[in-house]
Amino acid sequence: MIDYKLLEALATVVECGGFERAGAALGLSQSAVSQRIRTLEIRLGQPVLVRSPALKATPAGQRLLNHVQQVQLLERDLAKSLPTLNEPSARLRIALNADSLATWWADAIADFCRDEELLLDLVIEDQDIGLRRMREGDVAACLCSSPQPVAGARCVPMGSMIYLPLATPEYIRRYFPEGLTETALRDAPAIVFGPNDQLQHRFLAQCGFHGSFPHHLCPSSEGFVKLATTGMGYGMIPEIQVREELEAGRLTSIATGQQLEVKLYWHFWRHGGGAMDRLTQALQSNRISHR
Amino acid sequence: MIDYKLLEALATVVECGGFERAGAALGLSQSAVSQRIRTLEIRLGQPVLVRSPALKATPAGQRLLNHVQQVQLLERDLAKSLPTLNEPSARLRIALNADSLATWWADAIADFCRDEELLLDLVIEDQDIGLRRMREGDVAACLCSSPQPVAGARCVPMGSMIYLPLATPEYIRRYFPEGLTETALRDAPAIVFGPNDQLQHRFLAQCGFHGSFPHHLCPSSEGFVKLATTGMGYGMIPEIQVREELEAGRLTSIATGQQLEVKLYWHFWRHGGGAMDRLTQALQSNRISHR
Repeated sequence: MIDYKLLEALATVVECGGFERAGAALGLSQSAVSQRIRTLEIRLGQPVLVRSPALKATPAGQRLLNHVQQVQLLERDLAKSLPTLNEPSARLRIALNADSLATWWADAIADFCRDEELLLDLVIEDQDIGLRRMREGDVAACLCSSPQPVAGARCVPMGSMIYLPLATPEYIRRYFPEGLTETALRDAPAIVFGPNDQLQHRFLAQCGFHGSFPHHLCPSSEGFVKLATTGMGYGMIPEIQVREELEAGRLTSIATGQQLEVKLYWHFWRHGGGAMDRLTQALQSNRISHR
Repeated sequence: MIDYKLLEALATVVECGGFERAGAALGLSQSAVSQRIRTLEIRLGQPVLVRSPALKATPAGQRLLNHVQQVQLLERDLAKSLPTLNEPSARLRIALNADSLATWWADAIADFCRDEELLLDLVIEDQDIGLRRMREGDVAACLCSSPQPVAGARCVPMGSMIYLPLATPEYIRRYFPEGLTETALRDAPAIVFGPNDQLQHRFLAQCGFHGSFPHHLCPSSEGFVKLATTGMGYGMIPEIQVREELEAGRLTSIATGQQLEVKLYWHFWRHGGGAMDRLTQALQSNRISHR
């Protein structure tokens, strides 16, 4: 059987972001942690960590990390029938999109995590990249916009998020006095989440506009809303995130009736054990609601 | 003089995250973009990009990117006196902490960006890492908790953020029925922003507790507040971010009177030109306020 002390050292180094901190977390010296990683690499015949530019697992290391996560999930189930075995609970690493975390996610899983004493290690990834991390074995589950199941994993629909093209009334008066003309769209600053965010492009294509447009880059869901409400730009924002701003008239649509729907899917490893199945059930009964 | 077409190609590839998208943005074919990068690397005698595990600039490439940003800032000043030169405005890359972006930042700079038609490329970094990116030449300015100026840059204080240890009243009844005892702290789930977040550790040290504690990892400012308000854990939250929740009693301190102050500093390159000086003035007159 695999020496899990070695795998635990690897998981802790990656989670803590360094050998010294991992040592502190495990109650070991830094050199003892290094020695475990070295032993693991010798047994495996290849490196499990790359040290630069930043410390991270190699593809082989990531497969090991995914394996550790699955074993930890199975241990959770075992601990239910053998409570004396109980160790401090493992953290479940989940990739999800920033907008879900900023809106419906916490409400959907809070009761479950509390009741099962489950700790989460959340990783924010732009929709399609999360799935790549799942494929690489870096996360145990992933909430993203792709319906394509990963081999060995299940995929269930989680409803959809509705995005509206929003700005302040003052912004609209200033930049779109004659509506969304091509000239106006070429000059009006937009807000884009990051290089992988295609929502503004899709919205503009819906409007028949295919040129380039000035935009701020703001990789934070709440920061995005802040930039929009201060009048710095217009952007595609989840309706459920800004209900108050819409009702109060602080934000309003730049193209009434236009919206984009982003369907979300929950991907999880098939052999994640009972805890993963129950988490999935909790999510399914609390999926995104537009009421 | 440097061939700026080559540097522009490099900046666009990094910003767009790929050669194909960079080509689309520049109105060039993908192979024309590749050719420019290759030419740049031949002239320089070393690579400017690493392709895997993810596309990013080498240290040499980052120095070039920083140079391009500074040149673009200077061009902005020039364009004021020679408006016919006006090109689509450059984006200014700034590293800042997630909590500032989620709270006071947008209000402080909105008017300035609107008046100067300045676009931002915001990068979220845990406080001390932003400064490293500044040193590496990857960003033009950085808002972080270190007062140590980088060589060639200026550093001005921006006030401080006050963090309170908060949870829901229900959470406190459940996990701290007898106050913050050592036993309770060993069992009560906390929320930690990420491996570099030392706020919970500092708070617990203030309470005289030095053991390990269970915690969720949640690298999102708004997600952090959501997890706390659903009762999943307690955590150090900026007071200005949750005034409403505090007034409504949805969140309350787990240790009344205890708080942590995080001083913030604005670092910017000395030769950033007039636009950077004016941005700094705008920030100084709108710094964090606790009124």
